[in-house]
Amino acid sequence: MASKPKTLNDLFIDQLKDIYYAEKQILRTLPKMAKAANAAEVKQAFETHRTETEGQIERLEQVFELAGVAARGKTCEAIVGIIEEGKEVMEDYADSEALDAGLIASAQAVEHYEMARYGTLKALAMQLGMKDAAKLFDETLAEEKKTDALLSQIAEGGANKKGQKAA
Amino acid sequence: MASKPKTLNDLFIDQLKDIYYAEKQILRTLPKMAKAANAAEVKQAFETHRTETEGQIERLEQVFELAGVAARGKTCEAIVGIIEEGKEVMEDYADSEALDAGLIASAQAVEHYEMARYGTLKALAMQLGMKDAAKLFDETLAEEKKTDALLSQIAEGGANKKGQKAA
Repeated sequence: MASKPKTLNDLFIDQLKDIYYAEKQILRTLPKMAKAANAAEVKQAFETHRTETEGQIERLEQVFELAGVAARGKTCEAIVGIIEEGKEVMEDYADSEALDAGLIASAQAVEHYEMARYGTLKALAMQLGMKDAAKLFDETLAEEKKTDALLSQIAEGGANKKGQKAA
Repeated sequence: MASKPKTLNDLFIDQLKDIYYAEKQILRTLPKMAKAANAAEVKQAFETHRTETEGQIERLEQVFELAGVAARGKTCEAIVGIIEEGKEVMEDYADSEALDAGLIASAQAVEHYEMARYGTLKALAMQLGMKDAAKLFDETLAEEKKTDALLSQIAEGGANKKGQKAA
């Protein structure tokens, strides 16, 4: 109770550590999802996003440097839960033609979590006058939105239709 | 292993049960967040969304009826994790002027989870020829996007600036 009240900068660093942990978990999970997927375009989308995720982690490390804080993650219960649900889909739908649609649903939950966090981080960076950091978040945010739109497109045009045929 | 492979309809019902559980958790959490918030506009945003959430739950119950399935939730690890993080913010930032910014960040993570799920449900409903269900999801999706935009606006214009003054 004797500790100083937390500041907006503390919130910024907390959120940064949260998404840093999350991105590292995502980096580990995407190859498993790519391996599990049936359709080539779904595999490809996950593999492309894996490469993007590496770049996003590097950007986060740049922001840690800009903030003068060691790059370290902090357990993010949200991503743990989201990935856990993705694993359940992989198990429950392993032999189902709805598998790809399920994997895409999981991936989009991940994308949206990232969009929420990067949106917050960008707003906080702006308020804290960290324009370079805001720019880095913006680059990642654009990638996340693009990936989400691509996944929607695949789901609407391909993955789900394939599942329907099996139904 | 003798069980039939799961279908796209099974995926639809699984996702429906997931978001039904999630919405009920959100309904319980929003009043706590409204109570914790400092700024009147943040309190108001959470209270308004609580009322909206009641309507969204009713829409889900209509979809369960359309699908001929009893309305029942299924533990959603993702929302459990997201809400857990929100509780941490409430505790860690209880005496901080960055509290509202933290609460908004948590609420936006919730909104984005909902957007991901309702987007998937809408796509699945379309593929399954459930046009009435798709329309209901669309109504909720529009509300979620509006709430998310409102929260961004508050964060950028108000809640975060207040936090910065305290820094």
